Amino acid sequence: MNEHILFMKAALLEAEKAYHLDETPIGAVIVHQGNIIGRGYNRRNTDKNSLAHAEIIAINEACQAIGDWRLEECTIYITLEPCPMCAGAIVQARVPSVVFGTRSPKAGFGGSIMNILQINELNHQCEIIEDICKEECSTLIKDYFKNIRSKNNIL
Amino acid sequence: MNEHILFMKAALLEAEKAYHLDETPIGAVIVHQGNIIGRGYNRRNTDKNSLAHAEIIAINEACQAIGDWRLEECTIYITLEPCPMCAGAIVQARVPSVVFGTRSPKAGFGGSIMNILQINELNHQCEIIEDICKEECSTLIKDYFKNIRSKNNIL
Repeated sequence: MNEHILFMKAALLEAEKAYHLDETPIGAVIVHQGNIIGRGYNRRNTDKNSLAHAEIIAINEACQAIGDWRLEECTIYITLEPCPMCAGAIVQARVPSVVFGTRSPKAGFGGSIMNILQINELNHQCEIIEDICKEECSTLIKDYFKNIRSKNNIL
Repeated sequence: MNEHILFMKAALLEAEKAYHLDETPIGAVIVHQGNIIGRGYNRRNTDKNSLAHAEIIAINEACQAIGDWRLEECTIYITLEPCPMCAGAIVQARVPSVVFGTRSPKAGFGGSIMNILQINELNHQCEIIEDICKEECSTLIKDYFKNIRSKNNIL
């Protein structure tokens, strides 16, 4: 299996954990020299904490794993295009490569609304690879919102 | 004393803690109904963690203090205009009001390079108040970088 697909599947497993907690299903993993050193899934409501996005949790774990604030030889895999906070956090951690599954047309800052991952004025820009396991990543999110709408109609 | 000045002085005390750790001196406090419910100062090198910016540490503490990911009745005081990660985190936490001491012309995302605090496409925009204790906030940062340059010349 292609390496990008393999690690995106790992990010999808994280996203499914969020789904089971009734959280918007977004997952992330950070890979360093072929090993996953950080994992995270959206836990915003569960943790009652606006910082508890998949990417932030994964970056925190990865910094602890390698004992450095610079994740310079890492790739982050995210099921969804990042929000401004997470895109900014990825740049702050100097992650060279960002792979995401599907775009977030109304809230994505990896190219949709803005591209915070590649700002010329900053001292770090990320390589972006899109559309890895796009169908699975997109279906998971769509199912989640479809279920919410259907629950709201019942109530 | 004007309320904004009072709380910016508290943020400056946080920034001084960073200074004493040889970290770029940036501090933040979050105020809810007249009380400080979150404090933070830059600890990136000390913690070996790219997330350990003043604002992120303060938001984390504030969410725990009020048990909600929404900091809807809060004001954040920051000695320096925020980076993209922190500006995004402030928007994610739906903080209504952002007060900062001085601009960061080369890395600020509260109006200098971009204005992530007021993006029309998102469902939250912050009020921005600038130049509170500007001289003190600016001098602290300038002193820090002057000392670094002077240390580097000695070595």
